[in-house]
Amino acid sequence: MVTRSVDLRSDTVTRPTDAMREAMASAEVDDDILGYDPTARHLEEEMAKMMGKEAALFVPSGTMGNLICVMVHCEVRGSEVILGDNSHIHVYENGGISTIGGVHPKTVKNEEDGTMELGAIEAAIRDPKGSTFYPSTMLICLENTHANSGGRCLSAEYTDSVGKIAKRHGLKLHIDGARLFNASIALGVPVHRLVEAADSVSVCLSKGLGAPVGTVIVGSHTFIEKAKTLRKTLGGGMRQIGVLCAAALVALQENLPKLQFDHKKAKLLAEGLNQMKGIRINAAAVETNMIFMDMEDGSRLTAEKLRKSLTECGILVLPGNSSGIRMVVHHQITISDVHYTLSCLQQAMQMIQEPSLNQTGKTENALSF
Amino acid sequence: MVTRSVDLRSDTVTRPTDAMREAMASAEVDDDILGYDPTARHLEEEMAKMMGKEAALFVPSGTMGNLICVMVHCEVRGSEVILGDNSHIHVYENGGISTIGGVHPKTVKNEEDGTMELGAIEAAIRDPKGSTFYPSTMLICLENTHANSGGRCLSAEYTDSVGKIAKRHGLKLHIDGARLFNASIALGVPVHRLVEAADSVSVCLSKGLGAPVGTVIVGSHTFIEKAKTLRKTLGGGMRQIGVLCAAALVALQENLPKLQFDHKKAKLLAEGLNQMKGIRINAAAVETNMIFMDMEDGSRLTAEKLRKSLTECGILVLPGNSSGIRMVVHHQITISDVHYTLSCLQQAMQMIQEPSLNQTGKTENALSF
Amino acid sequence: MVTRSVDLRSDTVTRPTDAMREAMASAEVDDDILGYDPTARHLEEEMAKMMGKEAALFVPSGTMGNLICVMVHCEVRGSEVILGDNSHIHVYENGGISTIGGVHPKTVKNEEDGTMELGAIEAAIRDPKGSTFYPSTMLICLENTHANSGGRCLSAEYTDSVGKIAKRHGLKLHIDGARLFNASIALGVPVHRLVEAADSVSVCLSKGLGAPVGTVIVGSHTFIEKAKTLRKTLGGGMRQIGVLCAAALVALQENLPKLQFDHKKAKLLAEGLNQMKGIRINAAAVETNMIFMDMEDGSRLTAEKLRKSLTECGILVLPGNSSGIRMVVHHQITISDVHYTLSCLQQAMQMIQEPSLNQTGKTENALSF
Amino acid sequence: MVTRSVDLRSDTVTRPTDAMREAMASAEVDDDILGYDPTARHLEEEMAKMMGKEAALFVPSGTMGNLICVMVHCEVRGSEVILGDNSHIHVYENGGISTIGGVHPKTVKNEEDGTMELGAIEAAIRDPKGSTFYPSTMLICLENTHANSGGRCLSAEYTDSVGKIAKRHGLKLHIDGARLFNASIALGVPVHRLVEAADSVSVCLSKGLGAPVGTVIVGSHTFIEKAKTLRKTLGGGMRQIGVLCAAALVALQENLPKLQFDHKKAKLLAEGLNQMKGIRINAAAVETNMIFMDMEDGSRLTAEKLRKSLTECGILVLPGNSSGIRMVVHHQITISDVHYTLSCLQQAMQMIQEPSLNQTGKTENALSF
Repeated sequence: MVTRSVDLRSDTVTRPTDAMREAMASAEVDDDILGYDPTARHLEEEMAKMMGKEAALFVPSGTMGNLICVMVHCEVRGSEVILGDNSHIHVYENGGISTIGGVHPKTVKNEEDGTMELGAIEAAIRDPKGSTFYPSTMLICLENTHANSGGRCLSAEYTDSVGKIAKRHGLKLHIDGARLFNASIALGVPVHRLVEAADSVSVCLSKGLGAPVGTVIVGSHTFIEKAKTLRKTLGGGMRQIGVLCAAALVALQENLPKLQFDHKKAKLLAEGLNQMKGIRINAAAVETNMIFMDMEDGSRLTAEKLRKSLTECGILVLPGNSSGIRMVVHHQITISDVHYTLSCLQQAMQMIQEPSLNQTGKTENALSF
Repeated sequence: MVTRSVDLRSDTVTRPTDAMREAMASAEVDDDILGYDPTARHLEEEMAKMMGKEAALFVPSGTMGNLICVMVHCEVRGSEVILGDNSHIHVYENGGISTIGGVHPKTVKNEEDGTMELGAIEAAIRDPKGSTFYPSTMLICLENTHANSGGRCLSAEYTDSVGKIAKRHGLKLHIDGARLFNASIALGVPVHRLVEAADSVSVCLSKGLGAPVGTVIVGSHTFIEKAKTLRKTLGGGMRQIGVLCAAALVALQENLPKLQFDHKKAKLLAEGLNQMKGIRINAAAVETNMIFMDMEDGSRLTAEKLRKSLTECGILVLPGNSSGIRMVVHHQITISDVHYTLSCLQQAMQMIQEPSLNQTGKTENALSF
Repeated sequence: MVTRSVDLRSDTVTRPTDAMREAMASAEVDDDILGYDPTARHLEEEMAKMMGKEAALFVPSGTMGNLICVMVHCEVRGSEVILGDNSHIHVYENGGISTIGGVHPKTVKNEEDGTMELGAIEAAIRDPKGSTFYPSTMLICLENTHANSGGRCLSAEYTDSVGKIAKRHGLKLHIDGARLFNASIALGVPVHRLVEAADSVSVCLSKGLGAPVGTVIVGSHTFIEKAKTLRKTLGGGMRQIGVLCAAALVALQENLPKLQFDHKKAKLLAEGLNQMKGIRINAAAVETNMIFMDMEDGSRLTAEKLRKSLTECGILVLPGNSSGIRMVVHHQITISDVHYTLSCLQQAMQMIQEPSLNQTGKTENALSF
Repeated sequence: MVTRSVDLRSDTVTRPTDAMREAMASAEVDDDILGYDPTARHLEEEMAKMMGKEAALFVPSGTMGNLICVMVHCEVRGSEVILGDNSHIHVYENGGISTIGGVHPKTVKNEEDGTMELGAIEAAIRDPKGSTFYPSTMLICLENTHANSGGRCLSAEYTDSVGKIAKRHGLKLHIDGARLFNASIALGVPVHRLVEAADSVSVCLSKGLGAPVGTVIVGSHTFIEKAKTLRKTLGGGMRQIGVLCAAALVALQENLPKLQFDHKKAKLLAEGLNQMKGIRINAAAVETNMIFMDMEDGSRLTAEKLRKSLTECGILVLPGNSSGIRMVVHHQITISDVHYTLSCLQQAMQMIQEPSLNQTGKTENALSF
């Protein structure tokens, strides 16, 4: 009988806080399609300023944020985008940039730290001038932090270098900054510095920041104007969005300063795992709030069985990109939750080290290895 | 100096009520993408039941609702949809079914009452079997109430007839029911009866019902399963949508019974206009909450000038489809607002009847004719 | 037992002449994708000059010609094109501009003579500036001659007027000139004058001109450059096309001067039909090489039965757009064929006027009414 | 002053032979869109039989052949195709499967021999059931011979293995067989055996086979029926294509048996290059008619300069995929051409080995290193 629940599936599971709920209840609102919702405008102005860009737009999700940005930069049919083969846009967004946007993706290998080699990016650029065989490269996409590498941060310098390549070839640079604030905290660098070289950024409000719904995209006035039209076409134009934006404004004030603690709790969890026999983890790679772990080779326990066993303890996790286990820490995970998780893992792993127990079959059933 | 504000632009301008705000503040929520948000599930089940369909899905907007429904019914490339040449989907949704969905529209003339002639619908159906010149007709779309005809209602019988044509030719029927509840009230027929023949319906929650954000689409289990995937692709998948769905549930309870008063207020306004010299209105056509009026031919006052004049009185209206003026009544318009609107209109019109006043130039300025 | 064959289905059925075959056999060719095929280049230069445009491109078909032109003018996603509701592009090209090109069609009623009212065209233009509800009108399409009106010609003056509307609104004008040479001959106006106002034209070589395969599109250098890339994307780039272009060059020299005779033969056929009892035809509307006829109301003979009857005489025709019969005259139809066709029709019609014959059942079977 | 011309850019540069030209001149033809062109039907039946498939369709180009096949297999929006990251479809066809077809490409690394690791293919398959994050994998594409690996052959066994993976996951298998006949000859395996596991194949007639224009795609009756409609939509439906198909029929009879000599000449060229100092070539990898060579590391001569120097000798070559030089042998390259090419290369390379000559500057200019 499990009563405790520790939800480590994602930082998207965060529930709105009391302050957010109160803000929603008292938000000043208007029809954001016929004109402007004042609270939305406030949030958009705030975000544009933080990001150092001219304008911003609230959209329903990170997926729509990325889709709109890619489609606006690649508005002319026959465009190609360069992006990581392990990037969220390429792997987890239903292939929408092609199936909805008609944009051709050219993937470059994502290194372990979420970067792509600069030489590989440059080699992937295709100039169709004088040839009729190639689509036109229009855009490079980066992801900061990079989810499938375990939340690794891209430095301002790396981003600048990619930005220089983009500029040299007349391309645009988009940053999928779903967890950009985590990178900013971890690196100790203001967000606007991290996206200085970018023409557009999409930042999620409902991940670590904990707002119930929403992403904001930023860019130039012209860019956001086009993005607004496309948002309507896709069906992302909504009416009294002030209720959502009010919660997001609270999230920025209330949770942004707390992201550093998410990273500390993640570190704590990673270090605990690092000391556990039979578990493979690169604790040094835990830079923000995500942890990727796997079973050591030859382990009798599969990651899938371990996930099940955790579920029985009320601990929810997701499979990592290529099996293994992914855990994401957020502001509604306490230090006590971390310790509880470690102790449940310890117990599950020990079961394995003591084959005699397994022979009885009982313990195995109990934990459903 | 205007202090009073009467917003007749649309029923989308309705602001959430205190009860809705309270519901948002206390809504039980979860990550609707990783699993299900309980309040969303509640709303979806409620709506499916009301509509007499198997399943339902909450989406950010009516535009996305229609786009998803058309794209799911026309999921195979090379499909064509038959729809009214004056329908919301064709006129006001950015052409998204083509530019995003790659679906070819075949328009049929919308009659004054929002219907399309049955014969014209049937004649528009194209069977590409044995021919390689035609796209495949897959879907017929109706709109109930029909906005651009002034909110006219399609009867259950008419809809059934179109449904029979669809069935006979192996086509699907989608109803854009943005204001379906208005039709139900006006006709005195339950909503499920109005959509019995439909394979999918999209119903707006943020128009007359007054919820801040959202539309629900309904259909079979299989249909909604596909719709859910497409919602994610388009970027309409959102996280803790319980906050929005809670407001929508209140809207159903609180505002649905009040829609009848919107119609009464609209009728009152229409009748007042009908007695005004120089104004052309078909009062009998005001069946729900929308009023389309225009200046009589040869009037010295243009609709555009009249709109401006109303703005100065704090009364907001929009141009109708083909010029003229559109007014939409909703639960935040009081009877007193209606009288105030009529008196402002009366004053503006009288100004015109008394040319001597115009010669002074003063009054003209005052009302900026 | 039928031995004679008169193929009036279309002018696309024309078979290459001996001179064309000889030209194909001796054509100078090269790889038109790796560089330029010299014969293709010759044809393209010739056509550009005749049309008074900067550049030209050979494409496999009229459908691809129109598709490329629409897609190049509407290269930015979210575009809308204004075109006739009875135009070839809208009715007979599989809806490709939407299903392949993602362009939203806005149809305007085609009048009986193939024109669209200038006022209706202008009213259909939508400027999305300041609104997020509308796609952007980018292009107007005309069709000269207009097939579904029976091959009626658009005058240079009419085309100029539409061109002026386009220019005033910053739009492009495309002319589907599949049978543009027929219009030129019928009007006695050079082709370049007929397309002076157009930004692009697609002209078919395998209709009345009788070449086996091909269409040429013309426009500015920039336009044709983009068209060439898109031709490759669609798969219309071909290798040694000189063999086809050589035949087309012969067609221009050999058949162009003969088109006038096609019109005379069509007139002869139309006048013959006009004198036949029971047949409805607007002989005055036969301006070029197409004839649309139907049975008079209340006729006991349906068009479908008449078609069958003609087939038994070796005369092939197609149904017109809305039933009836369509006949197209071309250079491989002789005057004797016209007389033979008239006499077969006469016989079939007389059968009907003499009910006594029908009672025997024999004649009826013979002609399978 | 160069008079001799040796065109090694591609086997697409082959010019029609006298026999082909004669066949074109005497071909029996009809309108292939209104019905069937008899010569086209003959060719299609012949090809279907050779490939062991139910039906076939003539299309204007290999690019259109591949585009149609991918789009028919992925006809439902939201589909994904697995294909080599160095495949012709992904690299050289303008990204059309995405930009025209809306299909999302998932690339797998092409090994040096043109295969993809079976494990990597299987790992790339994504089943969206139970998830809304992934597009649906519908299709795997192979390329035989594989151009960018230098014309390497995929064995029947390898193809079967991929076919088994496809079947196990309910996917389709398409083979881009632009140079499938070369693989058949080189492997000594009939073509139908090489594509036994495939649901569709596109085979080029205008490469080694030397026909002026055209590709044939094969598959089931249902598949080809859909392909025919899509061919029309894309604009690949053409009229009297018998003239092209007649040439293709000759190519099958006349050139197919000669492909083996192309391979021998390529081998001869490769072995000559292998013995040349300063040139890097994997002669063992020359399995068919393509040769990829590069300069040895540290060479003072770049591939670009060598290409230029060859041009001055009348020898045309293209850059390889990642620089270097690509040479393609075809039936219009003689053994004497091979020797001439080798001697020109030898001369150009020697210039480099004798630095003293370079110091004069004269010889260098002459060959423009």
